[in-house]
Amino acid sequence: MVFTLKICIIGFGTVGRGIVELIHKKNLDIEVVGICARNCCVYDRNGINLEHLIKNTAGLPLEKYPKADMALDTDKMIDTKCADVYVELTPTNIDHGEPGYSFIKRILSNSCHVVTSNKGPMVLHSRELKQLAKKNNVELLYEATVGGAMPVLNLVRENLRGNSIQSIRGILNGTTNYILTRMAAEGAPFAQILKEAQELGIAEKDPAYDVDGIDAAAKAVIIANEFFSKDSGMKDVDMTGITRITPEFVSLAGKNGFSVKLIVEVSDNVLRVAPRLIKKSHPLAVDGTLNALNLKLDMAGEVTVVGYGAGKYETAGAVISDILSIKN
Amino acid sequence: MVFTLKICIIGFGTVGRGIVELIHKKNLDIEVVGICARNCCVYDRNGINLEHLIKNTAGLPLEKYPKADMALDTDKMIDTKCADVYVELTPTNIDHGEPGYSFIKRILSNSCHVVTSNKGPMVLHSRELKQLAKKNNVELLYEATVGGAMPVLNLVRENLRGNSIQSIRGILNGTTNYILTRMAAEGAPFAQILKEAQELGIAEKDPAYDVDGIDAAAKAVIIANEFFSKDSGMKDVDMTGITRITPEFVSLAGKNGFSVKLIVEVSDNVLRVAPRLIKKSHPLAVDGTLNALNLKLDMAGEVTVVGYGAGKYETAGAVISDILSIKN
Repeated sequence: MVFTLKICIIGFGTVGRGIVELIHKKNLDIEVVGICARNCCVYDRNGINLEHLIKNTAGLPLEKYPKADMALDTDKMIDTKCADVYVELTPTNIDHGEPGYSFIKRILSNSCHVVTSNKGPMVLHSRELKQLAKKNNVELLYEATVGGAMPVLNLVRENLRGNSIQSIRGILNGTTNYILTRMAAEGAPFAQILKEAQELGIAEKDPAYDVDGIDAAAKAVIIANEFFSKDSGMKDVDMTGITRITPEFVSLAGKNGFSVKLIVEVSDNVLRVAPRLIKKSHPLAVDGTLNALNLKLDMAGEVTVVGYGAGKYETAGAVISDILSIKN
Repeated sequence: MVFTLKICIIGFGTVGRGIVELIHKKNLDIEVVGICARNCCVYDRNGINLEHLIKNTAGLPLEKYPKADMALDTDKMIDTKCADVYVELTPTNIDHGEPGYSFIKRILSNSCHVVTSNKGPMVLHSRELKQLAKKNNVELLYEATVGGAMPVLNLVRENLRGNSIQSIRGILNGTTNYILTRMAAEGAPFAQILKEAQELGIAEKDPAYDVDGIDAAAKAVIIANEFFSKDSGMKDVDMTGITRITPEFVSLAGKNGFSVKLIVEVSDNVLRVAPRLIKKSHPLAVDGTLNALNLKLDMAGEVTVVGYGAGKYETAGAVISDILSIKN
C-alpha cells in the first residue's frame, strides 16, 4: 500500500529548516504534521502548509510564527502519536544527552519511529535506545550523526551485507580537516588559521569541541558501538587533538608525500582519535572540509567513502534519506 | 519468518568459486542447491556439501567432480525452480549478451530472483529485463556489474534516497588505472607498462576491452540506464581509450598537480569515457587498480566512493551482498 509518511520535527534549527525546505522544494512524499521548538509547536494533522511556514519563519524563531501554539509542548506532541516518524534534531550534548535522550525514549516507548542527527543520545545510551526500539518494533535511525551526508552506517548495513569489518579509519571532522589543509597550503600556524576559520563560520567560537577531537571521538564511539558491538563511551577514546600541530611538522610531512590528518581509528581493540600521517595518494587524503572513511572488510577488501560531514542541506539530506528508508 | 535462502549458481568460474568459498568459510545463511557449468550441473535439493565440492574441484572444471550430472543442463535447472535466487555469472559478452541474457529472461519468467555480475545483458537489455522482473514481482540485482566491490547502484538506491543525481564521474576500470599510475610513477611508455601488466595478470592478453575504454563504457551505459532513465547502448558512448597517452603528457600533468585518469562521465546529456586531468587532491585521484566514483547530488552535495572494481573475493562479496539483500 502506498501512503504518505507523516513526520513530526523536534528542533527547528538549521537542519530542521533545511529538512522543511527540501521536502517542500523537492515535493517529497512526506507530510510534516508537527514542528516543535523549545517553547512552542506548530501542528496540523492534515499537513502543515510548508510554503506559508517557510515564508513566515525566515530568520525568525518558531514562536513568532502566527500558527505556533505556545501551549503545546514537545512531550504532548510525542504523546499524540501524530506522526509515523519523529525527527529528533535538538542540540547535541555529549555530557547528559538531553533533551534528545528523553525525547527519543518517549517516542520509542510510544512505538513510533525515530530519525535523529543528535550524537549525544547515541554516544551515551545507544545500547538502551537500540533495545527499546527493538522491543517496540520500530526503527531508530541516525545516519546523520556520523559523517553528515557521507553514508556510513547505512552503507555497511545495506550495501556491504555479509562483510565482516576488520577496522575503520577516517576523517570525521570537517573543521579540523579544513584547518590542517590550510596549514599545509599556506605554512601558517594553527592559531592563525583557526581564527580565520572562526571568522568564516567554519569553526565555532569555542573551538575545543572540534580541535581537541571531541566531536570526532563522539562519532568514533557511535561507530564502535554500531560495528563492533561495544558499549563504549567517551572515556574509552584515546583522544589527541590538533592544537599542538606546528606548520613545520605539516610542511615536513608534505615534503615527504604525507598529509597530516586528524584520524579516527576503530577496531575490535582500538578506539582512538589522533593526528596521523596519511600518504597523499591514499583515498583518505582528502582536503578542505571533506570527511572520509576507510573500511577494511573481509570480502570487499577496502571501501572508502568521501563526502560532506556537515552543512544545512547535506545533513538534512541524510536525515531525509533515513526517513525515506522507513517508508520503503 | 527466518528461512535459509536457496541459491543456484550459473557459471563456475573465478567469481562462482569465490562465492562458494565465502559462503562455506563464513558460514553464511545461504544454501547452495545447484551449480551449473557449460556442460553439467551439480544439484542437491538439501544443499550441496560445499566442503566436499571445494576440495574436489580445486583447479578442475566442474565436470570432473564425481557428483556432476552431465545430463542436467542449465535450462532444466532453471525450470526446476530449485532456488529462490539464481546467481548468473556466465562470461560477459557485450555484443549479444549470451548466454546470460537468455538465462536471466528464463529465470525471471519463472518468477525467481536474479543476482548477476554479467554486464552484457544489462548493457544490451536492461529495460526489458527490469520490466520482466517487475512484471513477475521478483528482484533483479546487479551491483557487481559496476565497480565490483565498490557500492554504486545500491549506494544510491538505499543510502542516498531522495537525492536527485546531477552527474556522475569516475574511474571504473582498474586495469587502465593501474597502467596510468605506473606510467606516472615510472615515466615509462604505455606499451611497456601494458606488457608488464599482462605478465602480472592485471591486463588481458587482448587488452582492447580495457585500454580502449570498452569495459568502462559498458559500465557507463549501465549507470546511465539506471540513474538517468535512459535506454542507451554502447553506440551512444563517446569513447576514447588510453593507448595514445604518452609518458611525457602524464609527467607534464604530474608536475602541474594533476593525474591522468580514464574517466567515465554520465549525466542527463553526457555519456563519455575519456582520459581526463584530475587534480591530485581530488577524491577521484586514486591510484593502482582502485576504482572511484564521484556523485553530484542535490541534497548530499558530492559523495565519492572508492574500492576494488575486480578481484575474485571482492566481486563475489558484491554478489553475496546482493543475495543477502533479497533475504532481508
